[in-house]
Amino acid sequence: MAKLWALALHGGAGPIFGRDYAPEEAHLGALLKDGAARLAAGEAALDVVEAMVTALEASGLYVAGKGASPNTAGQWELDAAIMDGRTRRAGAVGALQGFESPVKAARAVMERTPNVLLVAGGAATLAASANLARVTDPKTYYGAVAEDTMQEQSPGMGTVGAVALDQYGDLAAATSTGGVLSKTPGRIGDTPIIGAGTWADERCAVSCTGLGEYFIRANAAADVSARIRYGNQTFEKAVRGALDDVKRLGGNGGMIAVSACGELAWGFNSSGLKRALADSRGRFEVGTFL
Amino acid sequence: MAKLWALALHGGAGPIFGRDYAPEEAHLGALLKDGAARLAAGEAALDVVEAMVTALEASGLYVAGKGASPNTAGQWELDAAIMDGRTRRAGAVGALQGFESPVKAARAVMERTPNVLLVAGGAATLAASANLARVTDPKTYYGAVAEDTMQEQSPGMGTVGAVALDQYGDLAAATSTGGVLSKTPGRIGDTPIIGAGTWADERCAVSCTGLGEYFIRANAAADVSARIRYGNQTFEKAVRGALDDVKRLGGNGGMIAVSACGELAWGFNSSGLKRALADSRGRFEVGTFL
Repeated sequence: MAKLWALALHGGAGPIFGRDYAPEEAHLGALLKDGAARLAAGEAALDVVEAMVTALEASGLYVAGKGASPNTAGQWELDAAIMDGRTRRAGAVGALQGFESPVKAARAVMERTPNVLLVAGGAATLAASANLARVTDPKTYYGAVAEDTMQEQSPGMGTVGAVALDQYGDLAAATSTGGVLSKTPGRIGDTPIIGAGTWADERCAVSCTGLGEYFIRANAAADVSARIRYGNQTFEKAVRGALDDVKRLGGNGGMIAVSACGELAWGFNSSGLKRALADSRGRFEVGTFL
Repeated sequence: MAKLWALALHGGAGPIFGRDYAPEEAHLGALLKDGAARLAAGEAALDVVEAMVTALEASGLYVAGKGASPNTAGQWELDAAIMDGRTRRAGAVGALQGFESPVKAARAVMERTPNVLLVAGGAATLAASANLARVTDPKTYYGAVAEDTMQEQSPGMGTVGAVALDQYGDLAAATSTGGVLSKTPGRIGDTPIIGAGTWADERCAVSCTGLGEYFIRANAAADVSARIRYGNQTFEKAVRGALDDVKRLGGNGGMIAVSACGELAWGFNSSGLKRALADSRGRFEVGTFL
């Protein structure tokens, strides 16, 4: 029997318009194929989720990385996080300006510092010291975003994420976002908040998307793990319960998750969730709506 | 029977030196008396924890507010959070410069914006719009910190916090920190991370202090609530279990907590925890060591 692995990607929940999502679905499908091949070849979950989120950021198809939206001061401030379930090490950046890949900056925080979260100028200094690719002309770099994508940023949320289980039984999660359109300078959503928008431990890896403040107030990502650990809830029920809590507080969005047994789960209480899922048992699916 | 209320304060865990902690204990005792009188008079938990943490910040006796330490760039960047258990509303600031009371800025984020966390310049802009008291000369304002306090900032952690249950059955938590000495600019610890260093819901309110990165990786504050909610653990066991998880990851520190039933709990796996506890049943105690 082939060794167990599983992978899920998301390209954001929130206000999904009635248009054709074929471009995003084609992109997610191609990326899923690449990620599945990496995991099947024995690559570590942590490296695969970083690679997947880096590609999602670079595509400009989602509200993260190249697809990010400016804040009310006309600046592009980006957030990202990555977490290694086996060691519980984590890295995150908030309100990062001037670099192409926030998730690579988050990984650098994890690898190069004793810290978990660096924000603003401190995050940029670290990204520079790690020689990460810079955005020298933000208006041109981010300005190329498609009109459809721009429309969907208001009042919604666009975030990308990946969760994976590798052949060694290790779980990892990564999330990246350009935030909501017209956000306040310095606003940090759930994405780089470990436990809210991103979580990985020995039980599961979770990446969220949606109205971030509600995911923070629900402690949404870590709640999935707590339901399994203390409540002996099934994986599916834990994901559903965590999302129900977000809804009860008045929020909406979605999440993807993978368990230590290789189960994949996703859910949303918004109008759609762009997602892609694959595993070593042959599952391979891409979708936006129910 | 008098209506139920309970209050706990802390002035930081971490490397406690063998010196006499009479000044801090006297201050904590006087503050506890004030807070207890407020709760007995029917003041809301949310207002009491804000008042308590504001006073702790202003004292200069702890590594928060006036007692904060500079980062490696010689700047004073402060973090704080406040959370209302009944509504799960929360506000937080990270890397805030130029204002006397980070916890008041956190409350302003909660009351005046749809956001939970604002950092750096965005946090300062909000604090200014709320007309909060400014620190115009940081070197003079923060420089007055006693030598003993300065010594204890390395390599340790100093944080202040308060948790309360009011007569109406509502819980609230607030935490504020000046961070570790010689911290990296932009470093955000667990204090303003809802779920990590600060948490309040309908079950409990928790405020942590210690090596913040480990509290983030353990999702420490929200873990207390999860253990009660899903695991039916007793309150004392939940607090102990959450701290044990921090230790298992390699971290140390302490926490104070109050339950919806008015139980008070505290714990630490560092050398001490400056704390003060009082309730409507007549409990009134102040201490630093076991």
